[in-house]
Amino acid sequence: MTSVLVVHGPNLGTLGRREPEIYGTTTLAEIDLALTDLGDSWGWHVISFHSNSEGAIIDALEEHTSSVDGLIINPGSLSHYGLSLRDALAAFGHPIVEVHLSNIHAREEWRRRSVTAEVARGIISGFGWRSYLLGMQALRDILQG
Amino acid sequence: MTSVLVVHGPNLGTLGRREPEIYGTTTLAEIDLALTDLGDSWGWHVISFHSNSEGAIIDALEEHTSSVDGLIINPGSLSHYGLSLRDALAAFGHPIVEVHLSNIHAREEWRRRSVTAEVARGIISGFGWRSYLLGMQALRDILQG
Amino acid sequence: MTSVLVVHGPNLGTLGRREPEIYGTTTLAEIDLALTDLGDSWGWHVISFHSNSEGAIIDALEEHTSSVDGLIINPGSLSHYGLSLRDALAAFGHPIVEVHLSNIHAREEWRRRSVTAEVARGIISGFGWRSYLLGMQALRDILQG
Amino acid sequence: MTSVLVVHGPNLGTLGRREPEIYGTTTLAEIDLALTDLGDSWGWHVISFHSNSEGAIIDALEEHTSSVDGLIINPGSLSHYGLSLRDALAAFGHPIVEVHLSNIHAREEWRRRSVTAEVARGIISGFGWRSYLLGMQALRDILQG
Amino acid sequence: MTSVLVVHGPNLGTLGRREPEIYGTTTLAEIDLALTDLGDSWGWHVISFHSNSEGAIIDALEEHTSSVDGLIINPGSLSHYGLSLRDALAAFGHPIVEVHLSNIHAREEWRRRSVTAEVARGIISGFGWRSYLLGMQALRDILQG
Amino acid sequence: MTSVLVVHGPNLGTLGRREPEIYGTTTLAEIDLALTDLGDSWGWHVISFHSNSEGAIIDALEEHTSSVDGLIINPGSLSHYGLSLRDALAAFGHPIVEVHLSNIHAREEWRRRSVTAEVARGIISGFGWRSYLLGMQALRDILQG
Amino acid sequence: MTSVLVVHGPNLGTLGRREPEIYGTTTLAEIDLALTDLGDSWGWHVISFHSNSEGAIIDALEEHTSSVDGLIINPGSLSHYGLSLRDALAAFGHPIVEVHLSNIHAREEWRRRSVTAEVARGIISGFGWRSYLLGMQALRDILQG
Amino acid sequence: MTSVLVVHGPNLGTLGRREPEIYGTTTLAEIDLALTDLGDSWGWHVISFHSNSEGAIIDALEEHTSSVDGLIINPGSLSHYGLSLRDALAAFGHPIVEVHLSNIHAREEWRRRSVTAEVARGIISGFGWRSYLLGMQALRDILQG
Amino acid sequence: MTSVLVVHGPNLGTLGRREPEIYGTTTLAEIDLALTDLGDSWGWHVISFHSNSEGAIIDALEEHTSSVDGLIINPGSLSHYGLSLRDALAAFGHPIVEVHLSNIHAREEWRRRSVTAEVARGIISGFGWRSYLLGMQALRDILQG
Amino acid sequence: MTSVLVVHGPNLGTLGRREPEIYGTTTLAEIDLALTDLGDSWGWHVISFHSNSEGAIIDALEEHTSSVDGLIINPGSLSHYGLSLRDALAAFGHPIVEVHLSNIHAREEWRRRSVTAEVARGIISGFGWRSYLLGMQALRDILQG
Amino acid sequence: MTSVLVVHGPNLGTLGRREPEIYGTTTLAEIDLALTDLGDSWGWHVISFHSNSEGAIIDALEEHTSSVDGLIINPGSLSHYGLSLRDALAAFGHPIVEVHLSNIHAREEWRRRSVTAEVARGIISGFGWRSYLLGMQALRDILQG
Amino acid sequence: MTSVLVVHGPNLGTLGRREPEIYGTTTLAEIDLALTDLGDSWGWHVISFHSNSEGAIIDALEEHTSSVDGLIINPGSLSHYGLSLRDALAAFGHPIVEVHLSNIHAREEWRRRSVTAEVARGIISGFGWRSYLLGMQALRDILQG
Repeated sequence: MTSVLVVHGPNLGTLGRREPEIYGTTTLAEIDLALTDLGDSWGWHVISFHSNSEGAIIDALEEHTSSVDGLIINPGSLSHYGLSLRDALAAFGHPIVEVHLSNIHAREEWRRRSVTAEVARGIISGFGWRSYLLGMQALRDILQG
Repeated sequence: MTSVLVVHGPNLGTLGRREPEIYGTTTLAEIDLALTDLGDSWGWHVISFHSNSEGAIIDALEEHTSSVDGLIINPGSLSHYGLSLRDALAAFGHPIVEVHLSNIHAREEWRRRSVTAEVARGIISGFGWRSYLLGMQALRDILQG
Repeated sequence: MTSVLVVHGPNLGTLGRREPEIYGTTTLAEIDLALTDLGDSWGWHVISFHSNSEGAIIDALEEHTSSVDGLIINPGSLSHYGLSLRDALAAFGHPIVEVHLSNIHAREEWRRRSVTAEVARGIISGFGWRSYLLGMQALRDILQG
Repeated sequence: MTSVLVVHGPNLGTLGRREPEIYGTTTLAEIDLALTDLGDSWGWHVISFHSNSEGAIIDALEEHTSSVDGLIINPGSLSHYGLSLRDALAAFGHPIVEVHLSNIHAREEWRRRSVTAEVARGIISGFGWRSYLLGMQALRDILQG
Repeated sequence: MTSVLVVHGPNLGTLGRREPEIYGTTTLAEIDLALTDLGDSWGWHVISFHSNSEGAIIDALEEHTSSVDGLIINPGSLSHYGLSLRDALAAFGHPIVEVHLSNIHAREEWRRRSVTAEVARGIISGFGWRSYLLGMQALRDILQG
Repeated sequence: MTSVLVVHGPNLGTLGRREPEIYGTTTLAEIDLALTDLGDSWGWHVISFHSNSEGAIIDALEEHTSSVDGLIINPGSLSHYGLSLRDALAAFGHPIVEVHLSNIHAREEWRRRSVTAEVARGIISGFGWRSYLLGMQALRDILQG
Repeated sequence: MTSVLVVHGPNLGTLGRREPEIYGTTTLAEIDLALTDLGDSWGWHVISFHSNSEGAIIDALEEHTSSVDGLIINPGSLSHYGLSLRDALAAFGHPIVEVHLSNIHAREEWRRRSVTAEVARGIISGFGWRSYLLGMQALRDILQG
Repeated sequence: MTSVLVVHGPNLGTLGRREPEIYGTTTLAEIDLALTDLGDSWGWHVISFHSNSEGAIIDALEEHTSSVDGLIINPGSLSHYGLSLRDALAAFGHPIVEVHLSNIHAREEWRRRSVTAEVARGIISGFGWRSYLLGMQALRDILQG
Repeated sequence: MTSVLVVHGPNLGTLGRREPEIYGTTTLAEIDLALTDLGDSWGWHVISFHSNSEGAIIDALEEHTSSVDGLIINPGSLSHYGLSLRDALAAFGHPIVEVHLSNIHAREEWRRRSVTAEVARGIISGFGWRSYLLGMQALRDILQG
Repeated sequence: MTSVLVVHGPNLGTLGRREPEIYGTTTLAEIDLALTDLGDSWGWHVISFHSNSEGAIIDALEEHTSSVDGLIINPGSLSHYGLSLRDALAAFGHPIVEVHLSNIHAREEWRRRSVTAEVARGIISGFGWRSYLLGMQALRDILQG
Repeated sequence: MTSVLVVHGPNLGTLGRREPEIYGTTTLAEIDLALTDLGDSWGWHVISFHSNSEGAIIDALEEHTSSVDGLIINPGSLSHYGLSLRDALAAFGHPIVEVHLSNIHAREEWRRRSVTAEVARGIISGFGWRSYLLGMQALRDILQG
Repeated sequence: MTSVLVVHGPNLGTLGRREPEIYGTTTLAEIDLALTDLGDSWGWHVISFHSNSEGAIIDALEEHTSSVDGLIINPGSLSHYGLSLRDALAAFGHPIVEVHLSNIHAREEWRRRSVTAEVARGIISGFGWRSYLLGMQALRDILQG
């Protein structure tokens, strides 16, 4: 059975309330439900994890590295400076898809560069909460070769 | 009936032959066929256009702007310097999804910045020819609101 | 009753002992006491929080966002690279005053730029522990409109 | 009889429709008519050329170089990266006036630098379609010495 | 009656004598006369002011802001560093046309960037003393809407 | 008796009229009155000086350096390029508090760096005209040691 | 029989007339004749192509890639920004020699960097039209191993 | 009795498994054992601490600052952006030796700069797990110095 | 009779009192006296001018340009940003020697670049008030050819 | 028998006399003696070489490359610009340990980057003359595998 | 009789042994022989000089400047920082051809810029030892006009 | 008896012949003679040294450091990159005056920064061979206190 870890980085716990004109009104719980539903339809096990702390995310990656087949991660703004997270991803050992709710190329200059994306297979950015679903689909494409 | 324009930028005509270790062995014709098939399944009309010339791509955008509902574009390396194309996209008037075969964040420094993505809704990068299919899905999400 | 959250970022727990020639000999407990006293005199409820972890600070901001009316924050050096904290502040929803003990414009080059201050109402920097008291006064000015 | 070439660069063919809040509602045909009318009043022959392609513009410059007395060019965004066009202008052999509809100093950072203007006699930027008329007047001043 | 302020910045008092191979042999008095003549032909009142001091120019802008309808300014090299002048222009409240005798894009690198032009309606640069006349025409176009 | 010099730099003479959405509707006279009132309540002598000219401000600093005990200065945009003013402040010999009406970290990039603040004791920025009052309080804290 | 493609980029069609103090008085036809003569003496087939359009050059590279053994290219100023051409050269599959008439290291700063040369075997720059002949010799050296 | 704190930063918990071609196959437990053995031979007390969280590392530094005589720290990638950790080290009060398994000067550009090393006594980088042993020796030299 | 203008820029009026550890204890009056004495010994007429205002210095240069044979100028910190002064010097028409009391290469980074020195004959920096005397000698060497 | 070359770069001949507050009072002869003693205790042959000339150091590297097993080098400030030395080290063929007396990360900005360290196995910096001894130990670790 | 000086810069003495995958297996002696042979066939006198020292190369240039007709120089990495050599070449007085074995545009970033090439007639880079032969041919073209 | 070392850096041996339009026609021997004459008139012993090699200059500085009272040095282009020379000067222990024949602020950008001047007492630049005489005078001023 395929198992996938979904990691939500800093500030994603307040989705739905946080700057809805940028991030939309869907909550993190709703996203996790949608991902679980999609996973169920494929016979996948979806494990979701959220933390505002870079260190806790690295802990989670270490904990799950041997039991999952792939990773979907929205690093939030850690994408732009979280070099420790970047190293953890480089060592993860399974395919990684980075997703963002907003289009990181269409906002502040510093959001245009993702240091985590450079160790992912690919990146999906700008489609709101559906970026996660597209990420699931992308990961399935990768795992199916 | 929903109509979508798919634009393939410079050097994409030789897909399958060109640096297959980076870009894969799927040809442009095969990608267009896959996109048409997917479009057909949704009742969409898919128009494909390829050119190695920035000017010709802008011409095509102008020509189709009034007859299509959205755009999927792989600008190739024009992403990184094609400011005229960027302006044409900014004026296009329909949702735009930018796709890339390879992960632009994981190659040369200059590939990490896309001037065209800043006027697109979102970007999908790094999933080989399947980036196009994901782009179609993303566009459908946008058009369905 | 007006309620204000005071956040002390990394390395502020050792105030009084830490590089006193730069940061002075007043301890964090003494600062909190002075702030509580001042708050009491205005009929304000002052909640103090300190952590060395960016993630824990974001957690605290999320926890208190619905129950306080304003924020005084000394982000310490997170001011200069804590983009996740910056995003949390941008989403906080109440007036924010950033304070610093030392004058960030008069030290190393990298201290001169605050990424958190760009989402605060204002910044007070360089007056030792009294920067906090001035910040309280500034917040009262804002809340009184 | 004085003869002047007017070159409209990329994206100028859609003037009137394209982002009218920036570029106004006057069409390229209307601009050409106004230029022709003004030229007629001076006994000038006005030749107008538009292309979205840098290469085609260089072709046109080569074709007309021996038969015209001056050039008015709105290079569009080629101003900012079109080094081949810049070289063609440097070799043109007649006075060149660069015009822009919008004020290139008041928009994105990258629009502030014109590599083509460095080989023109002067630049007029920010007066909408009337920038062309002012350019005609400026060219007449130059040709009359 | 339309009233226009013409401001000549530092070093323009010596026009005609100063580096004539760059700035020409026309004197400032001759330029002012030509502007007055042109203004007279339109029924405009033209007020001319010259100073070598940024502060004095800001004083003049403050003094005339309520009595004129527009501004033509040649900030000289204040264009490149005069941020106080820039702020004064941003607050001026009437249309502003920036003019330069020489082509600022064709000289030293530092002359290519104008911080004052970013708050003007447009810029005319490179046509010698006739830049002022073109600026008058441009201002009339703006005021006539 | 404590004596304090208050210096208002370029463009502050038009406060109340100048871009009120940024700088508020309070006039400079009103600010000076408030400062005088506050000073009176402390038994301080408050001397106010305003000029649009960097040179005149330096003159004023030289004139008052031997007769005052401290300085509150809003250098306006001279903060960002006025190196002569910076040197004058470095030589002033009394505590200096720099104040700004708007939050310099939340506007254009060039406003984020203050060359004058690097020789002040501290900076207060973003609280409108109340930044001056806070500056007075900060100066009193400093003078009282 | 060895076959070689010679590509002349933008502005090379006017050689002999264009800025002869930099580029010399030899025409492109004369260069092509000299190359053909040299090729004939070696039993080589020399195919010459010139275009002012990056897209057309990429088209030509695609067209000839399967029928030639090597490439001599003078990309003109496309060397400095033509990233699409760069990608086409990277995919060309045969040895590439880049030639320039003038010494790109001895002119404007931006000419010193060639993005196309980074995917060529080598570069010859500064010897006028003879750079092409030297390029032919260099290519023969490469093909002979 | 001399006491030394050894701090292992982010991603060092997976040593032995993580990218062994870069970081080697020795585990963190084995390193700690070797350090303890070496410490025992000198009569030193060696305290080891590992965390993936910058905040937790600062907590540990605060906790041990009064009870140890020196610090050996491998900050991992926090070396390159962890300014809060840098400030904690600056305030630590005992000699600090920074060690790295890989040679930070021989990898990505961003790894070449260590903001933490600027407040350490020295740095040892590139000798695999033996960097720690060399760091112990260096620390002994300093303490005996 | 040879006539020389000596210009002292911003903050030089307080020499002797201003940061004497950097600038020494000699006053401006003493320097002027020494220069006059030296000039007298050569039969030169020495005119001294000091202002804290860039504009007033440009005024003075314009006023004296026709009556003097050379200029010695200590622009103070205007050296580093006074582009209007730079232009005035470029137009001055007589030999210019720039002098500085302190060594501009041995202080803050921004003092190392002089925009005024680029239009002077030469620069003498770092010898305290004697820099002026050396400048006089240098000017005499130039005038004597 | 293991043989090691020790190279001391520019300015190291005056150790003990040169800026002792930075570099200590130990002389180069004393360092060489300590290295020889340590080498003797391991049965190693230690060859020492010092020159102030980059060229002479490259000569020495060429001379000894076939007869030694490793290199310890203190390039002095050649670390920061000696690209020829860097190339010589890259071609050396044996393990290289770079050592510095002072901590290059804690001094001027330009000392933080070592172009020679990028072709060494590792770097030891900041431990005074003992950096050499630690370098010997590190080299032994490398040679012993 | 035509006489040519051939200068081989740092690290070229070990050609054939040094990183042969980059620089090939041909030795410097073999290159000199080939150059002499080619020179003999033209009736030229070829003088070869190699040094690892920038100073010695400048000495050689001074020594031979009056007796040779041209220079072929491979400055090695001195190309990238040897400003003294650059000045010596600028003063050499005869045509200079710079050659490189490897393609300097296809390696590390810092190799892409040659400060010596800016004072040469041209540059030939990337053709292994045959770059020298092509350089000889280029020099003959120049000398023959 | 006062003793002074005069050091002439790279390319100064050919003075008089080398680019006389920049450096003049006076030879190094003539300069040394003038310096000796001036020294004799003061009862000074003047020692002159010239080398094209940075290493040899450092050797000379080491050799003379204990026997001279001051240094006049024209480092030539070593001023701009010779960090080893800079370190040698920093350790020299006697007053240093840096001189240049041409005005380093009025030529190429890279000549404007002197890394050696930052450890000298002062710099004299732009007065041809007389810069040396002025340097002698400056040194005497320093030595006389």
